[in-house]
Amino acid sequence: MPIRRLFVANRGEIALRVVRAAQSLNIETVLGVSAADRDGLGAETADRVVVLGPAPAGKSYLDTRLVVHAAKATGCDAVHPGYGFLSERAEFAKLCEDEGLIFVGPRPETIDQVGDKLRARELAQRNGVPLVPGSPLLTDANDAADAADELGYPVVMKASAGGGGKGMFVARSRDEIAASFERASNEAQAAFGDGSLYLERYIETARHVEVQILGDGEGGVWHFGERDCSVQRRYQKVVEEAPCAAMPEDVRTKLHAAAVDLAAGVHYRNAGTVEFLYDVDRQDFHFIEVNARIQVEHPVTEMATGRDLVACQLRLAGGEDLGLSQDDIRIDGHAIEVRINAEDPNHDFRPSPGRITAWRPPTDEHVRLDSHCTASSLIPPFYDSMIGKLIVHGADRGQAVERLQQALNDFEIEGIATNLPLQRFIAAHPDFAANRIDTRWLEQTGLLAFAQDKDS
Amino acid sequence: MPIRRLFVANRGEIALRVVRAAQSLNIETVLGVSAADRDGLGAETADRVVVLGPAPAGKSYLDTRLVVHAAKATGCDAVHPGYGFLSERAEFAKLCEDEGLIFVGPRPETIDQVGDKLRARELAQRNGVPLVPGSPLLTDANDAADAADELGYPVVMKASAGGGGKGMFVARSRDEIAASFERASNEAQAAFGDGSLYLERYIETARHVEVQILGDGEGGVWHFGERDCSVQRRYQKVVEEAPCAAMPEDVRTKLHAAAVDLAAGVHYRNAGTVEFLYDVDRQDFHFIEVNARIQVEHPVTEMATGRDLVACQLRLAGGEDLGLSQDDIRIDGHAIEVRINAEDPNHDFRPSPGRITAWRPPTDEHVRLDSHCTASSLIPPFYDSMIGKLIVHGADRGQAVERLQQALNDFEIEGIATNLPLQRFIAAHPDFAANRIDTRWLEQTGLLAFAQDKDS
Repeated sequence: MPIRRLFVANRGEIALRVVRAAQSLNIETVLGVSAADRDGLGAETADRVVVLGPAPAGKSYLDTRLVVHAAKATGCDAVHPGYGFLSERAEFAKLCEDEGLIFVGPRPETIDQVGDKLRARELAQRNGVPLVPGSPLLTDANDAADAADELGYPVVMKASAGGGGKGMFVARSRDEIAASFERASNEAQAAFGDGSLYLERYIETARHVEVQILGDGEGGVWHFGERDCSVQRRYQKVVEEAPCAAMPEDVRTKLHAAAVDLAAGVHYRNAGTVEFLYDVDRQDFHFIEVNARIQVEHPVTEMATGRDLVACQLRLAGGEDLGLSQDDIRIDGHAIEVRINAEDPNHDFRPSPGRITAWRPPTDEHVRLDSHCTASSLIPPFYDSMIGKLIVHGADRGQAVERLQQALNDFEIEGIATNLPLQRFIAAHPDFAANRIDTRWLEQTGLLAFAQDKDS
Repeated sequence: MPIRRLFVANRGEIALRVVRAAQSLNIETVLGVSAADRDGLGAETADRVVVLGPAPAGKSYLDTRLVVHAAKATGCDAVHPGYGFLSERAEFAKLCEDEGLIFVGPRPETIDQVGDKLRARELAQRNGVPLVPGSPLLTDANDAADAADELGYPVVMKASAGGGGKGMFVARSRDEIAASFERASNEAQAAFGDGSLYLERYIETARHVEVQILGDGEGGVWHFGERDCSVQRRYQKVVEEAPCAAMPEDVRTKLHAAAVDLAAGVHYRNAGTVEFLYDVDRQDFHFIEVNARIQVEHPVTEMATGRDLVACQLRLAGGEDLGLSQDDIRIDGHAIEVRINAEDPNHDFRPSPGRITAWRPPTDEHVRLDSHCTASSLIPPFYDSMIGKLIVHGADRGQAVERLQQALNDFEIEGIATNLPLQRFIAAHPDFAANRIDTRWLEQTGLLAFAQDKDS
């Protein structure tokens, strides 16, 4: 049954994005906002607005019962959760469905399953999707050396009880294993009260790649190619691209098949992303996790495929047959997205909420700006700092990079500090132009160079 | 010799457009402005700004000696005249060249030749480009009837000394000729003191189509397909499209060939447009005139071909070989441009200069906005009222129309009256969607319906 009236349970650019996709399908929209967002562009654009509660997300956007009540009270038949907030809360999806609302996303059980790292890894393994090769728990240094020989060097020794980098040591040859084992074991014992260790293959040059999929919920799964999100800071994506320009065709084909197999294995419903670490030297990829929602970076896939993924979400959720075969989905050219954040790159990226006093977006063809901001928007301090996403498209990566540079130079924001200077720096950096990027590049090279550039 | 530093002898969106094309080629730019334009976006973007004089164009933009002096004094080696102002003044082009400056445009003699309507018609005739079929001067009503029979009905009887519609009568059969002849002759005698008449074929349903050409100055001419600019008000184009979606392929091929032949016949240099009237019923076209400059509507051709015409102008003027064969120039999809004017459609389109207080442009992919305006621009009363051009692209005309509707709805301008309501009305009109448009449509149907819609 096609969706007639949609409740949009999010804020910021994604709320506006969902409202517009719904409007393109002639679906009425009701936007639930916090008191801080009642005057925003999202509220202006939606057909109807409901104030959920005060600004703190716990009292508005994150209150599942409040959101479901608001959706029902306004006569909605479906809920789109966007990303973040309630989007990957299985109990919210279930509550929606129990109350007769279509949840635009995966089934609650799928959200549960892929949200649990261990169960997600089991799922990958069961469907033949490669994980990062690792050892069982190690008994002693000799055992470790044998396991390392089998995995191939370099390897990284990890504390079984660990996390956050503690108790992690890289060994590049058998000679280094004994010393690493002792230090790692001691450090793990001290930090976690448990000295047990295991080994994983260490990926020297890694790229974050991910495959966009859509499932019909009955075992049919389309993929929309991959994205490369290797420019990261503190595990947050900063720049995203589609396709990955650093991957041989045969690997790409296998990557897509792995993602589709995994999703088909759970009869995946609606939009999702399967994330992988790509080992550039070994031309090999390994499963990380599944994101059971639309992602921030979905527009690069839209620009590279010419498909509206959010509209596809709504159509699928409404029971429509997309009438789409995998061969219909083609990659055309190259797209790059940069996240524009209200944060100060000269002061350790601290958030910089406040009043925008000038907002002059680039208006070229091949440039898309997804943003809820205008020339006088107030950026509230309560939410994440992303104020927009600038996306460009080119016939190839080189042209896309040029257009990105131009668009970033044209983009002017005044009144608040933003990360535009950093994004301009990245876009103009020779490593970025040459695609010599990995998941450590920004923190190990880019930010250092950016700081030096600022000082000089 | 490539251009090193360019003087931009214009204002508004085209000045900014030229500055940006130059910057993409690493050409330095000097912008000559009037005192009224010194704080504009063009001045902000150019590498250097020279104030030519006070606001009235005669004392700044139109003063040929002043402009040439400013170009030389700032060390420029070339001048781009944009459109309007000095762009089609042969004596300005000549003065530039006499002073050792590259004039980015046709040779002065060509501007002279095509600027004279009679000489331009002779040029067309000599190169086999069809004119609207007409008769010699008529001796009497019998002579007129014979000539009309030969031309085919309907015909229009025109005063030889006429203009402005006076002394014009349409006759749809031989029976109507005698009466028309007498009334036309009397009216012409009364209005112009000269009763002599001639006949032209009357085009019932006409579209304005024009072919974009570039010449290398040595007889080589490329065409970039045609534009359809049939939505007009008082002979001013309001909406422009590329390609013309109402023309059979064989006619299109002949149209392009006619434009190329005409331009090649004068060894046309740089950018130009050959304008035609297209007779929809007879599938026949007739020469109107040549515009010896870049045109306002050039972006639709850029979006349909993916070529930067202004950059091509600069490269050609710098003596570069474009390395382009006609087969390289392909039409992809459909583009539509609407002119955004600071004028009040509810008050007979009177100009509405003033201070813009809000400016929220659409920022979708496939949408391009060429404008010099920002959220606080002052629109001075001295110049023409165009404040921007909104251009959209789609895979076909239907998709382009949809994107146009969306972009126009998203576009918000406050502080001054604009023609956005009219453009929204046109974009949403069934005649426009169905492409049932001719050169008389807007004034005979569109404006009337727009006024009724406003009243109701």
